[in-house]
Amino acid sequence: MIKRGKKRARTDRADLHAVLDAGLICHLGVLVDGSPRVIPTGYGRIGETLYLHGSTGAASLRAAYASPVCVTVTHLDGVVLARSAFHHSVNYRSAMIYGFAREVEDDGERLDGLRAITEQLAPGQWDVVRPPSGKELAATAVLALSLEEASVKIRQGPPSDDEEDYALPLWAGVLPLRSTWGAPEPDPRLAPGVPVPEHVLRRPNAVRD
Amino acid sequence: MIKRGKKRARTDRADLHAVLDAGLICHLGVLVDGSPRVIPTGYGRIGETLYLHGSTGAASLRAAYASPVCVTVTHLDGVVLARSAFHHSVNYRSAMIYGFAREVEDDGERLDGLRAITEQLAPGQWDVVRPPSGKELAATAVLALSLEEASVKIRQGPPSDDEEDYALPLWAGVLPLRSTWGAPEPDPRLAPGVPVPEHVLRRPNAVRD
Repeated sequence: MIKRGKKRARTDRADLHAVLDAGLICHLGVLVDGSPRVIPTGYGRIGETLYLHGSTGAASLRAAYASPVCVTVTHLDGVVLARSAFHHSVNYRSAMIYGFAREVEDDGERLDGLRAITEQLAPGQWDVVRPPSGKELAATAVLALSLEEASVKIRQGPPSDDEEDYALPLWAGVLPLRSTWGAPEPDPRLAPGVPVPEHVLRRPNAVRD
Repeated sequence: MIKRGKKRARTDRADLHAVLDAGLICHLGVLVDGSPRVIPTGYGRIGETLYLHGSTGAASLRAAYASPVCVTVTHLDGVVLARSAFHHSVNYRSAMIYGFAREVEDDGERLDGLRAITEQLAPGQWDVVRPPSGKELAATAVLALSLEEASVKIRQGPPSDDEEDYALPLWAGVLPLRSTWGAPEPDPRLAPGVPVPEHVLRRPNAVRD
């Protein structure tokens, strides 16, 4: 399990926002018949509120209304290779938010939430694509979760070996992990002559930094 | 929420093993006072058993003995840019395992589990680093979770737009996401003259493939 000493806990709101804003998907924990389920899903943030969405028919989403939830966003930044098996670790940034989600019923807030979710994954798209139809909106549930109950954990830097192990003739250090965007792959059914838009081409290469 | 039609559910054991074996960390869902907590952590697989570990003092680990757990491993392969906001999605491979974990008490299985967890994150390290001491082993709990209750979901390929939207003069396609290893960063306290070992240097560049 990732070791999480007190030194790794952060309470700064800027840290929380930064970890969330740098992510693409979260892992949503819900209760289904009293058992946890952990589901990868999109999210978006507006101020101190996290938005999630899903099909109104999804069991996991119904579960998210009725019981407490937990949302975790994790960036894995590298593998920490220590001189002992015990001190192997990872460099990471992780935010955990928990509490009860509310179903968003106001149409304006629903659209704002959906926009935030879409823009988190695909910035610049919301304003150029076909907006949700009434039928699509009716089939989509939007959930809001306050960021009030949240924690951030960050581990960076070289291994923390036992003092007596530093003399061992072993290599130790960090193998950094980076996420990068590849070249856009056009839909085979793309209408003729449609160029890749600037906001897709210009998307920053590194998503974790 | 990631849409998960039936076409995306796989039951093939080879798919399950492939998704797990390609991962570095999982998100572990446990119950703490009746609420879900989702924790990023390492894992390893031996056959049809998943191993997790943690400090014997960690509350999340104690929770994992006493109640059902869920482990999810997700690979995010790309962002799917559609012609409509509604059909934006992600390409991903995800495995979910759930059930009750058992505490591993046999010393041989505990070491095998810890080896699998270390090798998942840092292949080749277990045999060269200082092995766990008796004190370290005593401070480490090892959990085993059967892969019996598991599901795999995979989405790949271009967007699935509404038929009438294909004529829109909008770009659509996939923006692929890749994880790559950076150059190894030596520990500032590295003993003089210790080279980067071959198994670290030769680690395949792409971890998601």
